[in-house]
Amino acid sequence: MQVDGVPYRTLWVAEDGFSVEIIDQTRLPFAFETLRLSTLDDVLGAIRGMQVRGAPLIGVTAAYGICLQMLVDASDAALSAAADELLATRPTAVNLRWALSEMGAALRAVAPSGRRDAAYTRAAALADEDAALCRSIGENGLPLLEKALGSARDQGRDVLHVLTHCNAGWLAAVDWGTALAPVYLAHDSGMPIHVWVDETRPRNQGASLTAWELSQHGVSHSVITDNAGGHLMQKGRVDLCITGSDRTAANGDVCNKIGTYLKALAARDNGVPFYVALPYSTIDWELREGGASIPIEERDAREVSHLTGRAQSGQIVTVSILPEGSGVANPAFDITPAALVTALITERGVCDATAGGLRSLYPGRQLVR
Amino acid sequence: MQVDGVPYRTLWVAEDGFSVEIIDQTRLPFAFETLRLSTLDDVLGAIRGMQVRGAPLIGVTAAYGICLQMLVDASDAALSAAADELLATRPTAVNLRWALSEMGAALRAVAPSGRRDAAYTRAAALADEDAALCRSIGENGLPLLEKALGSARDQGRDVLHVLTHCNAGWLAAVDWGTALAPVYLAHDSGMPIHVWVDETRPRNQGASLTAWELSQHGVSHSVITDNAGGHLMQKGRVDLCITGSDRTAANGDVCNKIGTYLKALAARDNGVPFYVALPYSTIDWELREGGASIPIEERDAREVSHLTGRAQSGQIVTVSILPEGSGVANPAFDITPAALVTALITERGVCDATAGGLRSLYPGRQLVR
Repeated sequence: MQVDGVPYRTLWVAEDGFSVEIIDQTRLPFAFETLRLSTLDDVLGAIRGMQVRGAPLIGVTAAYGICLQMLVDASDAALSAAADELLATRPTAVNLRWALSEMGAALRAVAPSGRRDAAYTRAAALADEDAALCRSIGENGLPLLEKALGSARDQGRDVLHVLTHCNAGWLAAVDWGTALAPVYLAHDSGMPIHVWVDETRPRNQGASLTAWELSQHGVSHSVITDNAGGHLMQKGRVDLCITGSDRTAANGDVCNKIGTYLKALAARDNGVPFYVALPYSTIDWELREGGASIPIEERDAREVSHLTGRAQSGQIVTVSILPEGSGVANPAFDITPAALVTALITERGVCDATAGGLRSLYPGRQLVR
Repeated sequence: MQVDGVPYRTLWVAEDGFSVEIIDQTRLPFAFETLRLSTLDDVLGAIRGMQVRGAPLIGVTAAYGICLQMLVDASDAALSAAADELLATRPTAVNLRWALSEMGAALRAVAPSGRRDAAYTRAAALADEDAALCRSIGENGLPLLEKALGSARDQGRDVLHVLTHCNAGWLAAVDWGTALAPVYLAHDSGMPIHVWVDETRPRNQGASLTAWELSQHGVSHSVITDNAGGHLMQKGRVDLCITGSDRTAANGDVCNKIGTYLKALAARDNGVPFYVALPYSTIDWELREGGASIPIEERDAREVSHLTGRAQSGQIVTVSILPEGSGVANPAFDITPAALVTALITERGVCDATAGGLRSLYPGRQLVR
């Protein structure tokens, strides 16, 4: 997608032919800076530090982490150790595990001497595939937006209002994004569309990333606090909700950024469609249901107690916002039960958020355990 | 309640015998500063600027605004004009209208020459009454906390976990608070209690005020983002929710800080009791129901786009957290339908959140229109 009119992906191989460059997402929305990752440690640091984040992008970045390690040591032991270290960076998103498993399968089929080239080839394919998958998600979701706009027009409103939580735009993937892919296609096709952007505390991915990428692409939007969406739905000011997913159980339960569940409850209470957009790599076929089984990452208290912004001087400043001595809890994800999800939008089409719905799109796949 | 071990109310008449002093709530939690209001304009500014806030406290502060105007001009015209100006400061909370109506009734019964003294007498009575009402709310709510702790113990947990949204503690009233009054009484009685404090964006009254007052009083608590409460309820980590109310319709619909509705939905979905604590002055007997009728204040975009905290240098800094050019919407309140409220806790007792429930506590009152 576009940054200041220039097309970008969220990561690409650098001019040196082996490093990978990323957009440093911790610097947005205040500065657009790229960062060069040249070692496995660089990749581990960038994922842990959330300079890259978003379930699909984490997976592809980890794949390049394997590439960088293959430059140094292409043995089976090094491959396993690198995969283990990468897997441990973020416990919730399943794309990470999936991407590492794809890389492992591709490389173990090749002698160590061939692994460097095989790794870069497979990682590039994963990146291209991710962009293509997201574009397909957009195409499959677009008719749902068109239908919702039709309903809005029947009620005398001529702009489609979409609410999204967190960032599931192109910054969360390689390009296009998941939840925002249909929004970009709708906007590009000339549809009158406005996005309610949940701020998404504590890391403010909505206010920092979603608002920034919508701005760069020229899509009309308003940032709202995470508290406001229910009220907007009560007042008929939201035509549909759409979010991404960090992990989707085989029954359609959706693990996504903390607070998604609250919006899904409000959507149901107000008859607003609630869609979740995801590539197949987000589906965890090993999970019968999401509730008890998905590990929910508890992140650093400092994400809640501190916040970074731009002072009037232009300086980027981190401030503390709590009284001294107040405790903090910071669960990073929650589970939205499948019953609250109107439909899942994947690269293969739209389906019910049920085991049967998912099987209808992925007939070759089934619950693993 | 206590600040650094010293008992305080949120407002009191100054040593000069006519000004009123308040705690400047916009400076908390970083600095405890008091502010002297000596004119009606001072009072208008303090309410508009939210140096005093909280439905009960706004009402009492406005009463002192009338006092200060009576010092200057005790005519009928001045009384009406002052009441109109005060009423226009905050459109949602009904205590403001109630306090002004109480003051008007008391003063119109007296010749202008007697209004100064009558005003201070009536305002002091309103302040004392508010403290007493809140204490009664605490006493009426305490058995509900004891019962919830009993249930928690039956499930093998020995600390009561209470979730609250915004600030309905003593800082929102003259003393004790509404939602937090039962919490303070429980804590003072030795009950093991822990409070989940919703940050409450955009003004962060939870993180700034509730966390501060609980800290000062020694009540165990953790600040959480507004997104986290649903997840904690799903995980069985919340025994009950309790909030205040800015306006309660005659059928029990509750208007309160934006985001309250989302927590009430999650409470229902997880079988967690959801209580609303309020003094009678918050009940709007003229409102049959809350949905369409209560004006929802839309506040300044800057509340969402900017945030104030303490930099590492110790300096208090306001930072911008949005990309340039992103729009903002900032509705300040929402309506929680009565059906989501387990019970109302008032100074008279506990009742169903229904017209019949409210009538049972206030038999003399009925829907006005």
